[in-house]
Amino acid sequence: MKIAVLGTGNVGDTIGSKLIALGHTVMMGSRTADNEKAKAFVDRHVEKATAGNFADAASYGEIIFNCTAGVGSIEALKLAGEKNLNGKVIIDIANPLDFSKGMPPSLAISNTNSLGEEIQKTFPQTKVVKALNTMWCGLMVNPTMINGGDHSTFVSGNDTAAKEKVKEILKSFGWLDKNILDLGDITKARGTEMYLPLWLSIYGATNNGAFNFKIVS
Amino acid sequence: MKIAVLGTGNVGDTIGSKLIALGHTVMMGSRTADNEKAKAFVDRHVEKATAGNFADAASYGEIIFNCTAGVGSIEALKLAGEKNLNGKVIIDIANPLDFSKGMPPSLAISNTNSLGEEIQKTFPQTKVVKALNTMWCGLMVNPTMINGGDHSTFVSGNDTAAKEKVKEILKSFGWLDKNILDLGDITKARGTEMYLPLWLSIYGATNNGAFNFKIVS
Repeated sequence: MKIAVLGTGNVGDTIGSKLIALGHTVMMGSRTADNEKAKAFVDRHVEKATAGNFADAASYGEIIFNCTAGVGSIEALKLAGEKNLNGKVIIDIANPLDFSKGMPPSLAISNTNSLGEEIQKTFPQTKVVKALNTMWCGLMVNPTMINGGDHSTFVSGNDTAAKEKVKEILKSFGWLDKNILDLGDITKARGTEMYLPLWLSIYGATNNGAFNFKIVS
Repeated sequence: MKIAVLGTGNVGDTIGSKLIALGHTVMMGSRTADNEKAKAFVDRHVEKATAGNFADAASYGEIIFNCTAGVGSIEALKLAGEKNLNGKVIIDIANPLDFSKGMPPSLAISNTNSLGEEIQKTFPQTKVVKALNTMWCGLMVNPTMINGGDHSTFVSGNDTAAKEKVKEILKSFGWLDKNILDLGDITKARGTEMYLPLWLSIYGATNNGAFNFKIVS
């Protein structure tokens, strides 16, 4: 599949590299087409990767991964352009962490709204699926790294077929079907984004980011 | 030990009953001394339980459990009275869930503050420890009900000795030492309270409240 990865940070690089390892082709999108990190990504995956600005990448992708910093995601998607996004699945793995007031970050959007919802409201003709935003990016694409791959991840979104597509991608990343919990519509992104402060606290207390939680009952 | 349980709902009743089963004596506190639920609690535990208003209970207890509804906790503790609380450990297991705008509830305090912090700021001579607020009350006092008791719980607070006392109580409830994670100071209550929307989403998706999460790494 032709996939757009918006964002050139660790998350975008990790997601893009995994998608390429799985046989997809990836265009990495950034604010400017000559982004150095995007160039380095292309150099490492020369057969399968290209780079462009947000609009180039969004136009290219059949599916869009939003791996931009959460506080800049709406602006990045506006630069990507509604016409390049409409009708497509946007897998939103960003968190609206606001570092402007120091550490720990607060959430720029929370409680009665979420980044996932805000993207869906801003681009009503897209199919936003919130996923993977509850863990370190290394685990997103390699869940078998811990606990034999037996731990929990979530999807939420308004479009059932879009969530099924995302589940297939998650399974290709190594997620067990039984551990992918569909929380419901895109308002359920609130919970997964508001989990971030607890994630950061656990990380701070344990000095280990390679953790996740497994629902037990 | 003589323990005050503030709040007569399911949480207070569950915590109070467990404390009595463990040999403690409990005074249940409520807004009015003639609260029907408190009377019923005393009738079920006639040898070990008494009831009174918030001030009576706070005066009685060597340790205070805050099991009031989170949006009313500050007012309840003000009724309990600073002089009856000062110097004592307050185990805050409440969540500031605001149901006034319908379901799902939002949080009345969140992101850059928390109920745990607000209690500590309002009563600076107390030792507030946030604990147990991330699960259904049945599991708080009976963790062995699921997964052989092997799942995670948190404490946060500014006073190390107070947290140690709370850990001892948690262990008496059946929590394994390895699963009680000290997140740090009372600001870490933000994360455990902000987890509630995700908890509610998981509950909604699974129709089962008897779940918890286990940190795996």
